[in-house]
Amino acid sequence: MVNLDKAKMEEYAASLSSIQEAQRRISPFVQETPLLTSSSLDHLAQANLYFKCELFQRGGAYKFRGASNAVLSLPDDVASKGVITHSSGNHAAAVALVAKMRGIPAWIVMPHNAPKCKVESVKRYGGSVCFVERCMDTREEACRKLQAETGGSIIHPFNDARTISGQGTIGLELLEKLPQLDAIVVPISGGSLISGISVAAKAIKPAIKIFGVEPTGADDVAQSKAAGKLVILSQTSTIADALRGNLGPLTWPIARDLVDDVITVSDEEIVRAMRMCYEILKVVVEPSGAAGLAAVLSTKVQSKRTEFELKHIAIILTGGNVDLSLLSDFFKGN
Amino acid sequence: MVNLDKAKMEEYAASLSSIQEAQRRISPFVQETPLLTSSSLDHLAQANLYFKCELFQRGGAYKFRGASNAVLSLPDDVASKGVITHSSGNHAAAVALVAKMRGIPAWIVMPHNAPKCKVESVKRYGGSVCFVERCMDTREEACRKLQAETGGSIIHPFNDARTISGQGTIGLELLEKLPQLDAIVVPISGGSLISGISVAAKAIKPAIKIFGVEPTGADDVAQSKAAGKLVILSQTSTIADALRGNLGPLTWPIARDLVDDVITVSDEEIVRAMRMCYEILKVVVEPSGAAGLAAVLSTKVQSKRTEFELKHIAIILTGGNVDLSLLSDFFKGN
Repeated sequence: MVNLDKAKMEEYAASLSSIQEAQRRISPFVQETPLLTSSSLDHLAQANLYFKCELFQRGGAYKFRGASNAVLSLPDDVASKGVITHSSGNHAAAVALVAKMRGIPAWIVMPHNAPKCKVESVKRYGGSVCFVERCMDTREEACRKLQAETGGSIIHPFNDARTISGQGTIGLELLEKLPQLDAIVVPISGGSLISGISVAAKAIKPAIKIFGVEPTGADDVAQSKAAGKLVILSQTSTIADALRGNLGPLTWPIARDLVDDVITVSDEEIVRAMRMCYEILKVVVEPSGAAGLAAVLSTKVQSKRTEFELKHIAIILTGGNVDLSLLSDFFKGN
Repeated sequence: MVNLDKAKMEEYAASLSSIQEAQRRISPFVQETPLLTSSSLDHLAQANLYFKCELFQRGGAYKFRGASNAVLSLPDDVASKGVITHSSGNHAAAVALVAKMRGIPAWIVMPHNAPKCKVESVKRYGGSVCFVERCMDTREEACRKLQAETGGSIIHPFNDARTISGQGTIGLELLEKLPQLDAIVVPISGGSLISGISVAAKAIKPAIKIFGVEPTGADDVAQSKAAGKLVILSQTSTIADALRGNLGPLTWPIARDLVDDVITVSDEEIVRAMRMCYEILKVVVEPSGAAGLAAVLSTKVQSKRTEFELKHIAIILTGGNVDLSLLSDFFKGN
């Protein structure tokens, strides 16, 4: 049960006002992404579902919101030295894109196994890619090294107040268009998205439920909430490449206090939901992008729907950056 | 050069007022589909492109507009006997869906080689499918036979004033949202879509250009306009299964008089544009749905862009009903 403690809300890395400020800063550059509905999916879920299509965001994922808020808030003299980040893909492309818009260099540390299309996006936007091993320590060390060499600013993919506030603008858009919402379902990786959305949505409508979604093979938030402390997984296993991260010191307190529950979904459930996104909603999602629909169709959310009388549920379709050559593998035999 | 003759406009199967009437009739049931934009594609085309996403229409294609206008305009006693149509897919599903909504039976004559996903949609919506050979005479004969047996009403997929007026509602939506439009690019099969849009758009903004698009292997309209008379092709060859039809007696006069030019595109150009729709716009289009983008990126439209100073161009993404299992074939080696 979530307890909304006003004093506590002020201690988080983001607040309603920092998110509103982010909205003023980034709104000339970001897309206010459309909401899609489907009577077939409503029928399956026995609820009114609203799909927030962040795959139509610039760069193909919600990450452009946080990245643009962070990069655009740098003073000119600092920004001119460039920006540095590490990311398995979507945040990487977003930082490269906003750096290109601002006319400053971007250095992006990426794991060797990042999807090809995500690496290509970074290059297309003019970012310099440095490949490293998958491990988080190696990535952060590579960033610090680049910073020492260039004097650039590190834009952390999730453990950064500016990033969290940028992602939170989705919460503002949702509740402006859909004040009737009973719940928002949000995939979790490093937690900037669910943190920003939780802070914005619960500040505007305290009764709203926020459900996180994780692959069963990368369930660090479910484990952390069960243990009451931040659990870091050294190994993860899921096809959802954008959901392999762990929470950080800034996102954990928000996930701990404001996220009502975390639903875990199998890779099979993710692929089934992905197929529905293509066949019914006609949108191109990456596996991580479909995790929210997978959760809503799982028996776990279905029982919550009854328990809390959830009639209007928003699902964040987080991103659409997928190698087309892999689609046939995903959909084989499903 | 198109000549707008007011007296002639009144002789067409649809008029601005019949299209406005269709809009009043169907607007509670159809989606006002979103417009997507992409700075990458604008850069490629050297124009501002607006993608009208009819793939998000109910049934996954614009056909629901015409089908719902036709079926909903039937009086109760006539409607109760059911509806009959022939279609290779999208109109079939649209008629089945609106018949289901109205609680009346639907008999759908389909060619043996219709895409599997389109046949399944008809069945999912409760329509009865009768398979016939691909030839148009056989299809129409099968419809007449069904009509004799059931007393149902035939809803022609394109050569029907009600269908044309329904599709024309896209023209109203476009010019309401985008009064600055210089041109609209529309794929052509039987011609109901381009007829409805041409009548609506040219009535509201006479200077607007309408460009039709056809596969080189199904270029009956280009041939008809060159010959100054309706040319019917007995054989067509294209992967764009929804663009294999010929114009009919009601759509030919409108295409002849109001369509400024017809651009032909190869299957290779269609597949390349389709890939861009998936990778850049993140929408699931069927091959026919991507023909408009293929045309806009072709040198033929690029020269028109310069000739007529076309800055703002709308492209209709007509539908998104594609067998996912075929995607890997489409994108192989492209």
